[in-house]
Amino acid sequence: MSLPSVIIVGCGFGGLWAAEGLRRAPAAVTVIDRTNHHLFTPLLYQVATAGLSAPSISAPIRHILERQKNATVLLGEVREIVPQQRHVVLEDRTTVAYDYLVVASGSINHYFGHDDWAPFAPGLKTLDEALDIRARVLTAFERAEREADAAKRSAWLTFVVIGGGATGVELAGTLAEIARHTLKGEFRRVDPTRARVVLVEGTDRVLPPYTPALSEKARLQLERLGVTVWLGKRVTGVDAGGVALGAERLEAKTVIWAAGITSSPLGRPLGAPLDRAGRVQVEPDLSVPGHPEIFVVGDLAAVPGVPGVAPAAKQMGRHAAANIVRSLKKQATREFKYKDYGQLATIGRNAAVAMFGKLELSGYPAWLMWLLAHIYFLINFRNRLAVMIDWAWSYWTYNRGARIILKGPS
Amino acid sequence: MSLPSVIIVGCGFGGLWAAEGLRRAPAAVTVIDRTNHHLFTPLLYQVATAGLSAPSISAPIRHILERQKNATVLLGEVREIVPQQRHVVLEDRTTVAYDYLVVASGSINHYFGHDDWAPFAPGLKTLDEALDIRARVLTAFERAEREADAAKRSAWLTFVVIGGGATGVELAGTLAEIARHTLKGEFRRVDPTRARVVLVEGTDRVLPPYTPALSEKARLQLERLGVTVWLGKRVTGVDAGGVALGAERLEAKTVIWAAGITSSPLGRPLGAPLDRAGRVQVEPDLSVPGHPEIFVVGDLAAVPGVPGVAPAAKQMGRHAAANIVRSLKKQATREFKYKDYGQLATIGRNAAVAMFGKLELSGYPAWLMWLLAHIYFLINFRNRLAVMIDWAWSYWTYNRGARIILKGPS
Repeated sequence: MSLPSVIIVGCGFGGLWAAEGLRRAPAAVTVIDRTNHHLFTPLLYQVATAGLSAPSISAPIRHILERQKNATVLLGEVREIVPQQRHVVLEDRTTVAYDYLVVASGSINHYFGHDDWAPFAPGLKTLDEALDIRARVLTAFERAEREADAAKRSAWLTFVVIGGGATGVELAGTLAEIARHTLKGEFRRVDPTRARVVLVEGTDRVLPPYTPALSEKARLQLERLGVTVWLGKRVTGVDAGGVALGAERLEAKTVIWAAGITSSPLGRPLGAPLDRAGRVQVEPDLSVPGHPEIFVVGDLAAVPGVPGVAPAAKQMGRHAAANIVRSLKKQATREFKYKDYGQLATIGRNAAVAMFGKLELSGYPAWLMWLLAHIYFLINFRNRLAVMIDWAWSYWTYNRGARIILKGPS
Repeated sequence: MSLPSVIIVGCGFGGLWAAEGLRRAPAAVTVIDRTNHHLFTPLLYQVATAGLSAPSISAPIRHILERQKNATVLLGEVREIVPQQRHVVLEDRTTVAYDYLVVASGSINHYFGHDDWAPFAPGLKTLDEALDIRARVLTAFERAEREADAAKRSAWLTFVVIGGGATGVELAGTLAEIARHTLKGEFRRVDPTRARVVLVEGTDRVLPPYTPALSEKARLQLERLGVTVWLGKRVTGVDAGGVALGAERLEAKTVIWAAGITSSPLGRPLGAPLDRAGRVQVEPDLSVPGHPEIFVVGDLAAVPGVPGVAPAAKQMGRHAAANIVRSLKKQATREFKYKDYGQLATIGRNAAVAMFGKLELSGYPAWLMWLLAHIYFLINFRNRLAVMIDWAWSYWTYNRGARIILKGPS
């Protein structure tokens, strides 16, 4: 008799923790991901801003799971889920059958019905996108150095980040640091320290999940780093030349999208109700209503009171695995309970905000906490060491180790 | 009165050493390169084989030249040189005038009139190509793991390296190491240690610039690492399914081209005689016949007895700079004399060959020498440290730090 099969779709934090939670389960686990690596997404903005190399924040999934002998890793893209037949369909039309399914396919960039903006304002969800943003940012300074026309030069030296959530704040703060410190003195015709970094946010404060007092502290830290923060401004258009905000217009050759994500489309075929963000409204045990053999974890799962952050995805992944183990033993599944360890957002050098229950921190103490937490959580020792060296180096020298544009001028 | 202007085209070893040789010259130096980085090409094969990240072997040109205040760096592609008008033309049709010109645009992949082979057999000249090869190699093992058909699986597990020069030997040896050690135990359906790495060379020995005895030692070391070496075989076709060698055929999904390079096309407009490889036959002082204000250095220069290696390019770059300084002082230029410090070629773990005048080394001593020399020459301290850590790590663990495929399955 063959072992019951578990398919895990997606190997982000939710999927990887689900796989590891099944390491002693009497089951054949198959992990399917579109890429060959697990990505430490909280540091993706560092790859986009040339502080870290791509391999420093990623590890091959099959290397992580090498010793877990009940796990098979497949590089592939799940295009469909057919709950009635209990199989998934891959991009080459092959099907893979399951007894249990964990859907951990996460979220994707969302342009609120303006997909035509995407080519001019890349988002930051994958390594490819991070390297695209890195090339755009570095190339913009290069183009400015070659540009004779003052207005065009100024557009090359204007960087707009749309969206004042954690990603937008990190990107804007780091871009200002690059312009003011890293590139200082390296150009002969333009002054990179006069580059303009504008963070545009539609609501009346940055970092909405934090308290209004911390949001204000974050805004002040951003301004101190050299970021211009525009609150309460709605983007109404993005094109090759800049950003429209109602009647206003910002001439900018580099625009980054950090304003919205939506759920992976793989929530739809599950037949369960979705919330407005496209997330699957799961049962308290994280299973899909009517399908006790399917679990949804991470950003794709809508669980009241649980934010879309890495620690929540890990906890859900681990919990879904435990429920599968209980189900295999014919035991009742258990309700998921989120444990909130607090929230941290970095803004730039020595600048961050943190919230641990009622305790609020900002500035250097919050930044130090963020630094230690992220080094600690980086998945394997090698990466941790490489990241520490990269960071120590760039902290002291303001230099950034990954300032490599991989494509020539387009 | 403005300073005389020097344009340096290309910032490989020849161009960079020319720029640095002019650091005290009363001249305005402009360095133009298609990429924003100087590349340590002797280690490019390590990026292609996932041992090093791209930023580890490259450094932004403007960062290297930051303190050289008489140097301006432009990201751009020189499309034409017009010696009669003393200017170069960039990709956007803008022109840049010069009083002195150093052409250091190097060499490009050469398919001997079979450019249609290029899509199936990428060469290894740029970081982009290295990352392309890395993705192809890693994806091949992934595809094999998913492939049900035995013949197709075997084609995914067959790797052909065409060309038995230094690059081909390094690539083949490292590919065998990846298959036999790095990936061992990480797959469930295929056995990566049974992958086949075939090195095809048209002549009767590998590493032709070395002595026949060292070539034979290199071949033996390759075989010991698990490489199948085919000598005296001419490739007559390359397509998506494999390689044709006259009547024979090798079914292989991954083919790498290391068989030939030719000179950059920028030698042609100089009006000087070219040799069969398209290199400019320069005067003894490295200037172009009839154009004492133009110097050619590196792979693009044909100087009898001087090989196309990094140390020669550096020496030529430095010499051209010195001759420009002499010319500015109205002094006579001097003849270039190549100083041969020996040759080293690595094959794989503990395997290499080296030639220092009459002294010949192979195996572990040659490999150790190669390792020390390459760490020493890596351009800046940060890279040197990062490379040392990466190498120490992968030597002890057989793991490779950069095993990241940046594109999903195509």
